Amino acid sequence: MLRTLLIATLALLAGTPVSADEGIVQKREFVTEDFTTFGGETIPELRVGWEAYGDLNAERDNVVLVTHFFSGTSHAAGRYHPDDPEAGYWDAIIGPGKAIDTDRFYVISVDTLVNANVHDEHVITTGPATVNPATGEPWGLDFPVVTIRDFVEVQKRLLDSLGIERLHAVIGASMGSFQALEWAVAHPDRVERMVSVIGAGRMGAWEIALLEHWASPIRLDANWRGGDYYGHDRPIEGLTASLMLITQNALHPDFFEMQFPGHSNLPAEALANLDGDFAVTDWLRERARQRATVSDANHILYLTRASQLFIAGHGPDLADAMSRVRARTLFLPASGDLLLRPGLAQETHDLLVRAGKDSTLDYLAGPMGHLNGVTSIDQAEDRLRAFLEE
Amino acid sequence: MLRTLLIATLALLAGTPVSADEGIVQKREFVTEDFTTFGGETIPELRVGWEAYGDLNAERDNVVLVTHFFSGTSHAAGRYHPDDPEAGYWDAIIGPGKAIDTDRFYVISVDTLVNANVHDEHVITTGPATVNPATGEPWGLDFPVVTIRDFVEVQKRLLDSLGIERLHAVIGASMGSFQALEWAVAHPDRVERMVSVIGAGRMGAWEIALLEHWASPIRLDANWRGGDYYGHDRPIEGLTASLMLITQNALHPDFFEMQFPGHSNLPAEALANLDGDFAVTDWLRERARQRATVSDANHILYLTRASQLFIAGHGPDLADAMSRVRARTLFLPASGDLLLRPGLAQETHDLLVRAGKDSTLDYLAGPMGHLNGVTSIDQAEDRLRAFLEE
Repeated sequence: MLRTLLIATLALLAGTPVSADEGIVQKREFVTEDFTTFGGETIPELRVGWEAYGDLNAERDNVVLVTHFFSGTSHAAGRYHPDDPEAGYWDAIIGPGKAIDTDRFYVISVDTLVNANVHDEHVITTGPATVNPATGEPWGLDFPVVTIRDFVEVQKRLLDSLGIERLHAVIGASMGSFQALEWAVAHPDRVERMVSVIGAGRMGAWEIALLEHWASPIRLDANWRGGDYYGHDRPIEGLTASLMLITQNALHPDFFEMQFPGHSNLPAEALANLDGDFAVTDWLRERARQRATVSDANHILYLTRASQLFIAGHGPDLADAMSRVRARTLFLPASGDLLLRPGLAQETHDLLVRAGKDSTLDYLAGPMGHLNGVTSIDQAEDRLRAFLEE
Repeated sequence: MLRTLLIATLALLAGTPVSADEGIVQKREFVTEDFTTFGGETIPELRVGWEAYGDLNAERDNVVLVTHFFSGTSHAAGRYHPDDPEAGYWDAIIGPGKAIDTDRFYVISVDTLVNANVHDEHVITTGPATVNPATGEPWGLDFPVVTIRDFVEVQKRLLDSLGIERLHAVIGASMGSFQALEWAVAHPDRVERMVSVIGAGRMGAWEIALLEHWASPIRLDANWRGGDYYGHDRPIEGLTASLMLITQNALHPDFFEMQFPGHSNLPAEALANLDGDFAVTDWLRERARQRATVSDANHILYLTRASQLFIAGHGPDLADAMSRVRARTLFLPASGDLLLRPGLAQETHDLLVRAGKDSTLDYLAGPMGHLNGVTSIDQAEDRLRAFLEE
């Protein structure tokens, strides 16, 4: 600990990024101009945050790109400070000697456009809550609808700026899996390996509808004002209700049973008054309220839309898109996933196999449903290590 | 058809209910006074609608009580008019010669308190949207929180008024199963058989949380005004969003795949604009909007709360409640149910078996998830018939 602190202090004094080997990471910023979205709109200037762990080799061919999930950020591993209570979300598998070995790989992760956590000091993103240089005001709903392909193209510009032409692997969970697969379809010659964790090749009608309920509470909050709330009170109540639903959709009943084993069905306050909470609803609300402080409601709406619009290749035919993939692929759905059901990964894997591709599928276990792909990823350590070495 | 019409006309002229044998039913009204809720509050006067099919025998011992689900009414079978496009929701199993044979049984169904469909001309209920005789104004949120036990006690008063002391069977789907099981626990000497379809013995922490999301959109609608909207614009948008979520929670992805086999992930309107709909969200919204016209938002909140509070026996211990049951019991969960998972019925059935009771459990199949218990109940016809005859 003392040594880590010392190195961090020295690095700060020297003004250089700390080596990821010590687990201390810094957010960096990437700025690019004249970005044309998949929908054909132009974003004159955009900036996103990114992090890197490990070192880029001379051949620039040891890069693993990690793409983040809906409510995530580019903070995939390490800590910002030695006393940071929490490490990046996949710290269990990214680091020296870990499955994604930073002694060997240069691991890059990028904040997406319209990142949910725009008020998190460690997040840099561009979206409705950020200032449109053309007007000097927040974009609001004038920001164009963006898609998973746009997230990929921003990452590609960053990699181009670093002189990185090929990816040893791209790997992501949930909405991150959409980006990983989109990479393999849109730039097949640049992706050697693709790992889809708790993922899908396209959103089914069920999932499109499911995500629509995430938008409803935000749109109903009077403070939302049709998206034009910057400079006014934020739609915190609607945002909180949305985050409550998102949290539950990403979990599983088994986890709730574990968290509330002796829950009361008839708490006095809930029986006396319609406003009275249950232990579980109180917990869910409090957790969402905390997350709402760093989130932006419009960004949640844009992320929801980007996810609803997803089909790998952004064309009408998933089978055709899979026929263009050259990467070896690994799918790791979670068996109890109620948000992106394992059948969605299976469908995509099957199309790849049918097209003669080298694809593998295996299941993650655990009581947390969809979130097993984040919180219980350590169970896939050996498989990931082997996949990256093959 | 002509004969049915003739009988209906004659019956109207005579002022008597039409025999259920012809499938034409009439709503009746039951009024009772000084009702004390489980929570200890008093409702000075309450009225509920009810329907009956078949004839009560001289011994008054051929009664089957059918208890309705969350968004249902007492219209379990038959038609109000010969040209009624839709029959009652369980018409497949209630009628002459059917599983619940109205040539043999007198089948009664009762609108619950706080029924969702208060603006449906065929529904009679008492709740926040109905007038409080003490003030001459709608109750609003002054209406006491009610529980499943209260629904049962209202039904018991109706049966008492008809001189019916024992039930050959009580049978209900979903929230109706809560009432059926509550009958068997609260009045074990009055219930000979209990059938729980797509049901549960108690709400788990997961289900309590899941239902909270049904309340959120209503509470967020500015027109809800803290529940005090009578005489003003109704909170239709919040109510519609709530009904959209309820509808999806009661269904299964398989059904959505069947309904939208060639759905587009990138419809031009959804790509161009955050307000643009997908085919599936458009369908869900339109369906919910229609249902909202006959529904009341506060009634949905009260039904949600009654459901969240449910544990059979209304005590802390489900096992203890099951030990008091004397009825033979049959549980029919639906294997693809994502709302009340089959494990909830299994848990209750297991407790009954462990207490030495005569209980049976079997699964319903179909692509509609929870709703298989309503729309595909015909598959249980033989089993129900045998259960009622044993």
